Amino acid sequence: MKKYVYSFEEGNKDMKSLLGGKGANLAEMTGIGLPVPQGFTITTEACTFYYQHNKNPPAEFDAQVKEKLQELEKKTGKKFGDPENSLLVSVRSGARASMPGMMDTILNLGLNDETLKGIVKKTGNESFAYNAFRRFIQMFGGVVLGVEKAKFEELLEEVKHSRKVKLDTELDADGWNEVVSKYKELVEKETGKPFPSDPTVQLKMAINAVFSSWNNPRAITYRKLNKIPDDWGTAVNVQAMVFGNMGNDSGTGVAFTRNPSTGEKKLYGEYLMNAQGEDVVAGIRTPQPIAQLEKENPRVYAEFKKIAELLERHYKDMQDMEFTIEKGKLYMLQTRNGKRTGKASVRIAVDMVDEGLITTEEALLRVIPTDLNQLMHKSVDPKAKAEVIAAGLAASPGAAVGQIVFDAEEAVEWAEQKKKVILVRPETTPDDIHGMVAAQGILTSRGGMTSHAAVVARGMGKCCVSGAESVKADIKNKTVTAGGHTLKEGDWITLDGTTGRVMLGQVPLVDPSLGGEFVKLIGWADEYRRLRVRANADIPRDAEKAFEFGAEGIGLCRTEHMFFEEGRLTFMQEMIMAENTEDRKKALAKLLPFQRSDFIGLFKAMKGQPVTIRLIDPPLHEFLPSREELIADVAVLKATGRNSAQLKEKEKLLAIVNKLHEFNPMLGLRGIRLGIVYPEITDMQVQAIMEAAVEVTKSGMRVKPEIMIPLVGHVNELKVAKEQTVKVAEEVLAKNPGVKIEYTVGTMIELPRAALTADEIAQEAEFFSFGTNDLTQTTFGFSRDDAEPKFLAYYVDKKILPISPFIELDRNGVGKLVKMGIELGRKTKAKLKVGICGEHGGDPSSIEFCHMVGMDYVSCSPFRVPIARLAAAQAAIREKQGMKEEIHMTA
Amino acid sequence: MKKYVYSFEEGNKDMKSLLGGKGANLAEMTGIGLPVPQGFTITTEACTFYYQHNKNPPAEFDAQVKEKLQELEKKTGKKFGDPENSLLVSVRSGARASMPGMMDTILNLGLNDETLKGIVKKTGNESFAYNAFRRFIQMFGGVVLGVEKAKFEELLEEVKHSRKVKLDTELDADGWNEVVSKYKELVEKETGKPFPSDPTVQLKMAINAVFSSWNNPRAITYRKLNKIPDDWGTAVNVQAMVFGNMGNDSGTGVAFTRNPSTGEKKLYGEYLMNAQGEDVVAGIRTPQPIAQLEKENPRVYAEFKKIAELLERHYKDMQDMEFTIEKGKLYMLQTRNGKRTGKASVRIAVDMVDEGLITTEEALLRVIPTDLNQLMHKSVDPKAKAEVIAAGLAASPGAAVGQIVFDAEEAVEWAEQKKKVILVRPETTPDDIHGMVAAQGILTSRGGMTSHAAVVARGMGKCCVSGAESVKADIKNKTVTAGGHTLKEGDWITLDGTTGRVMLGQVPLVDPSLGGEFVKLIGWADEYRRLRVRANADIPRDAEKAFEFGAEGIGLCRTEHMFFEEGRLTFMQEMIMAENTEDRKKALAKLLPFQRSDFIGLFKAMKGQPVTIRLIDPPLHEFLPSREELIADVAVLKATGRNSAQLKEKEKLLAIVNKLHEFNPMLGLRGIRLGIVYPEITDMQVQAIMEAAVEVTKSGMRVKPEIMIPLVGHVNELKVAKEQTVKVAEEVLAKNPGVKIEYTVGTMIELPRAALTADEIAQEAEFFSFGTNDLTQTTFGFSRDDAEPKFLAYYVDKKILPISPFIELDRNGVGKLVKMGIELGRKTKAKLKVGICGEHGGDPSSIEFCHMVGMDYVSCSPFRVPIARLAAAQAAIREKQGMKEEIHMTA
Repeated sequence: MKKYVYSFEEGNKDMKSLLGGKGANLAEMTGIGLPVPQGFTITTEACTFYYQHNKNPPAEFDAQVKEKLQELEKKTGKKFGDPENSLLVSVRSGARASMPGMMDTILNLGLNDETLKGIVKKTGNESFAYNAFRRFIQMFGGVVLGVEKAKFEELLEEVKHSRKVKLDTELDADGWNEVVSKYKELVEKETGKPFPSDPTVQLKMAINAVFSSWNNPRAITYRKLNKIPDDWGTAVNVQAMVFGNMGNDSGTGVAFTRNPSTGEKKLYGEYLMNAQGEDVVAGIRTPQPIAQLEKENPRVYAEFKKIAELLERHYKDMQDMEFTIEKGKLYMLQTRNGKRTGKASVRIAVDMVDEGLITTEEALLRVIPTDLNQLMHKSVDPKAKAEVIAAGLAASPGAAVGQIVFDAEEAVEWAEQKKKVILVRPETTPDDIHGMVAAQGILTSRGGMTSHAAVVARGMGKCCVSGAESVKADIKNKTVTAGGHTLKEGDWITLDGTTGRVMLGQVPLVDPSLGGEFVKLIGWADEYRRLRVRANADIPRDAEKAFEFGAEGIGLCRTEHMFFEEGRLTFMQEMIMAENTEDRKKALAKLLPFQRSDFIGLFKAMKGQPVTIRLIDPPLHEFLPSREELIADVAVLKATGRNSAQLKEKEKLLAIVNKLHEFNPMLGLRGIRLGIVYPEITDMQVQAIMEAAVEVTKSGMRVKPEIMIPLVGHVNELKVAKEQTVKVAEEVLAKNPGVKIEYTVGTMIELPRAALTADEIAQEAEFFSFGTNDLTQTTFGFSRDDAEPKFLAYYVDKKILPISPFIELDRNGVGKLVKMGIELGRKTKAKLKVGICGEHGGDPSSIEFCHMVGMDYVSCSPFRVPIARLAAAQAAIREKQGMKEEIHMTA
Repeated sequence: MKKYVYSFEEGNKDMKSLLGGKGANLAEMTGIGLPVPQGFTITTEACTFYYQHNKNPPAEFDAQVKEKLQELEKKTGKKFGDPENSLLVSVRSGARASMPGMMDTILNLGLNDETLKGIVKKTGNESFAYNAFRRFIQMFGGVVLGVEKAKFEELLEEVKHSRKVKLDTELDADGWNEVVSKYKELVEKETGKPFPSDPTVQLKMAINAVFSSWNNPRAITYRKLNKIPDDWGTAVNVQAMVFGNMGNDSGTGVAFTRNPSTGEKKLYGEYLMNAQGEDVVAGIRTPQPIAQLEKENPRVYAEFKKIAELLERHYKDMQDMEFTIEKGKLYMLQTRNGKRTGKASVRIAVDMVDEGLITTEEALLRVIPTDLNQLMHKSVDPKAKAEVIAAGLAASPGAAVGQIVFDAEEAVEWAEQKKKVILVRPETTPDDIHGMVAAQGILTSRGGMTSHAAVVARGMGKCCVSGAESVKADIKNKTVTAGGHTLKEGDWITLDGTTGRVMLGQVPLVDPSLGGEFVKLIGWADEYRRLRVRANADIPRDAEKAFEFGAEGIGLCRTEHMFFEEGRLTFMQEMIMAENTEDRKKALAKLLPFQRSDFIGLFKAMKGQPVTIRLIDPPLHEFLPSREELIADVAVLKATGRNSAQLKEKEKLLAIVNKLHEFNPMLGLRGIRLGIVYPEITDMQVQAIMEAAVEVTKSGMRVKPEIMIPLVGHVNELKVAKEQTVKVAEEVLAKNPGVKIEYTVGTMIELPRAALTADEIAQEAEFFSFGTNDLTQTTFGFSRDDAEPKFLAYYVDKKILPISPFIELDRNGVGKLVKMGIELGRKTKAKLKVGICGEHGGDPSSIEFCHMVGMDYVSCSPFRVPIARLAAAQAAIREKQGMKEEIHMTA
């Protein structure tokens, strides 16, 4: 005979698939001897059977439930339906995985007019008893009998109104009794039957209701979206009731074994005497800090403290516990691993190693890598209340509070007056950089994760929310509307760049704190990881930051960002607008010293670590004025007939912009295509790199420049570009006899064709760096700037995609190309160095993938370096622990 | 001892790699007993040795040359350097593959002052002899001694001027003698040495010069670009001279065994008596048609005719021959397979089968599939002289002559007056369709192979040259400039849509002719091919044409083209501008009848063949007015303060256009992404398809609709779209009980991710159709519209890419994805139907690839259907003949 019902003593924490999460947990606590209100769990197999047999439970089922119920009666010394000493139970669902949409809890099952009297008699507390009964009717009526929940609430309000009270707690026994009567009438009216009074019938109905809730529409949808198999089924937990509201020797509370904000090793929590869980939540009475319990009831406190320590040692993790004191006796209702801040997470992990509780491997696996963000950036105080008025993209982590300004100049002016400002713009351009430097944070209504604002802010480690489309900024009138509010210059707002939220007013922030535990943990990580971690940095300032965070080189220096800086853009435009090669070379010659000095700065900042420098990548029109504005200007100047000199000039400019205009610039004349059509650009860049390298080498520092050719799709492109690069490099070296520089020439793999023909490309490349931003764009056919606002969010929302492939590398599609690219590349050159320099280089799941496919390094923004170091260590540890099979190659 | 020198008798046509193309050919003719001036060939191995040994020939080399020279002397009865009876030879290079950039011919080697006298004496023709000598000095001096060629020309002009003659032929012996003297002086002055007089030295120097020419810069570049290995080397041919200019019993000519224009089986060619090859080319005297030779010299004619027949039988192909008559004796100097028009190609192939000369397989392989274009479209008379004033893209084949008009209305008006017009526009839009219908051809200065003009013209089978960037049309002033000419409305031009040329004036055209041979050949093709051939057709007219050309179904109906038609665009715009789903549905309801009636037309035209209908694909803003124009209009209306009502309206429109505007529309909200965000569009389209199918079925005709979901990248997209499609389809069928329709739902594979995850996608798809246009764009990261004008032409020109991947499917990259997509798809569904519907479906090389990877069908534009049928047959025959190894999977 199959066993469908387990008492808590018969289970343990490893039986989650049979007993559900909650059941296994209650069983475990019972097993280690903790005071848990006893009960039993109906297995998920019973539920599965129920559905496989046209909603009939197994034949032996009723008898098994009866048997366990009798055991429970014996243990508690109470009897189900006994008017004198009745057993009351709670009934709860509990699936393998936490699953919203399933049935709510039913408390106080077993009550009816008779047992109620017994309770009154036993407790001497009419008010308590009637309230318990009405709560039961309300829960059972709503959940099991399907009576509209609002109708119960209406009746309760009616009674309170007629008795002129405002709070539930103000109702006396008589009042509650009236509510009970009205509730019973309601149920009979709605269901056509009186409220069931037989506890056995009540239980049977409740169990069936839990089974049924497995297939309610919300649960089905949730399972579908989360890929939870329909045949898992849910377990049902039946547990003896205990009451924290039976007088001043009763109470209820929640506590953590350590401080979930700071990680400090000290009980942390709160409790309320003479109260049930709901009362704590309702916030009518203020709970006491847990330390107070020591004074109020030292015996119970000591017992709870002991249990807390035991649970922590048992689960080897910080615990989040619920408890109830019934007439002086402590009961544990729940324990689970506690949620915590990043800071606490790190401290707890490190402390527990020091305490000998866990190994360093366990500690490293314990910390969620992205939680380190909280330690490196300011963050919004999780306890603060805030009105969110808009949500944009979490473009650059951190938080900022400031007064709104609408242009870069004002940002600088206000900042000079020691004001804190948030720069609000439709989008930013290179002209806004000084304003971005001056601001606490940046908010834009347009542009995605790779927009100018986002990229620059991440480089600066400055908070940025981008693409908040509902934020309408009226730059001219200096107002902005969002979430129904109209704000003007000088009004305060708060940005959370870690979540993308925009909040009204000054919300309290929490400072970052890179404590000793952080250093210790990251130090351990370095011992385990196999992947090297580099940073993406375009300017010496970012490179220095990266080095500080432990970057082992620069994986991507985007040289074009140098062209956007003040004083250079003019020469860049001169270069673009040159009508012949001669003029273009002249303009390039003016850019050369800037590039060279930037490279010198980068090389010096990295102190001998390798520096990968990517040749110019974006289409040239990005450096020119807006085409739309020129079209409008020219049209107006033509129509009005004013200022023909200006018209002529603008027309000339527009002609150039039009010539460079492209339908799909992402797929147009950019990357090495530029370098092939205008080889003089490559010449200048390579010359600047090598001259910088020579200078730094002469100063006695080692330099390892890695020159990277972008957007290669065919080996011939790389061949041509490499020949040219080597030629220029050798010319520079020839002029500096005696200076030896190990430089290499490699390529980005960022087009599907490059990955597909990586064997050919590896013949020319000395290293590969996967540009998974672009590779994701072309593999999916998504223009990130268009997809994110127009349909990608919708796709993720509807679970058509599990997550944006720009956040987490799509293993099934893009990942397949990456894997193929590495394998083909190494088929040609076994020791080919391979890295990644897209944003995925800072995402833990993607880093794990990079580890699995055998990359040599990941490169990410400077502030992501510690995260990447930890994620790389976790990947290595999981592999070592043979958890490889759990790492799905498929999404 | 290695053999480095072969007499012509010792070789044959299969020894090309050793003797070079020319040498093998001369040997072959010698072998079959034809009168070829005798000689010998120095092998390519000698050349390779020469380069491997620091430019020294093998030790045994001189002796072997000497031996063959002696043999030649014996055969000819002449002696090298013999003043009485001297042997003169020509020296020519001859590599394995035809290779421009190599050494020119040297004629009359062996002449010096002594042998010259012998020639004079022997021929009694001083003028001939001196002219021969000066020609030798000129060639040898230029090619071997490196004297600037222009200097010889200058001297010749001087002498002619001083003797007051204009033509070379007017110079007498004395004049030529003077030239010889001056030439010798020139050589001595330039080289510091007298002109070499020893024939053996001359020969040695000439051979070395041929070897050296293998490594001259032009030859190296040519080899590099054409991937000809450097170590192939060149052969050297030394051949006894014969002279066609030794009097009226001498002559020279060229002839084809059949008419190269029509294919008629009749000798076709021309000759000149008392002339050398150069004289025929110079065009001073008019050559006679070859038939005239029969009258002039029946004996030689008969011999030549016999040889021609023999050669044709021997080579089993139409021959292009060169001959010389020296003092009444016929010599064959060259034979090779003759170039021919498409029409001739088909006729010759079919005739030769009928004559039993070749098999049908051979005949099918003999015709270049794209040559069939000439039989289906008018073409420019190849004999006509034309001034090309611009070159654009060969957007739609055929040729057209007409008067320039600049807008569609005028095109219609002029056409009504029976005038032939060419519509010249910067680019065309749906508003121009009636003008395109009225015009003979279309010329645009913007837009690529998939521009509106190109796509619509191909559908109509109408000649179109698009993207001719050098053509500057001034629509307002009705003028156009190109190639330095300014043309106005009404001026005549000629377009060649097969090559992309734009020509001045009325160039004669040749009519198309789908004769019986064509039908016969294509009929044979159908017996061999395994691939089915479908057509891309969007409207009934195109579908009918396709059916006529033998299409076995429609592989791609682009439904959006229906929306562009007059009377529909308004509703389409209404739909796009709808502010809510309700309004959108209302507008869609207005489009439904149009779509339905189009589909009815398509189904009827295809008479039961399958019809693949793709749901709407392009981004919605393509249906809206130009954003640039709106920006300009709004700016002007604002600046001038005129007409505020119009401003308001335009602003509203601009706001909508801006909302739909995308940075990279190719990768934005289009394809099934549209259908997912606006499911009501899919609903309407599926309803129209199924209602049309029901109606046609009810009329007694079978219908096989295949509904195709575009731009799928993730299986979930297809899943959602397919569920919706099936739901709507079943609703329509439920309303029509008794009507049975086999419909299927499949998808385009046009994104790399779709190919990479084809196993998943095949779980939902009932068929795959590779959209290799888009797949090429995303795999290469090329936006076709941007790449073609901006860098792709440059890439092909510089041989960075062998050919545009939009013309010929890139086997190595895109092809790898296609292969992977088919294999993965069939792993899931073994019998999955797979086709291609990009433009590659009409390209022979791509069709061969489709055959190799096991596709079921190709789909191409209607006029390409016969080409595809032939190409498919060729692929099957090559496979059958085990020539598979010659079909490289790599480009």
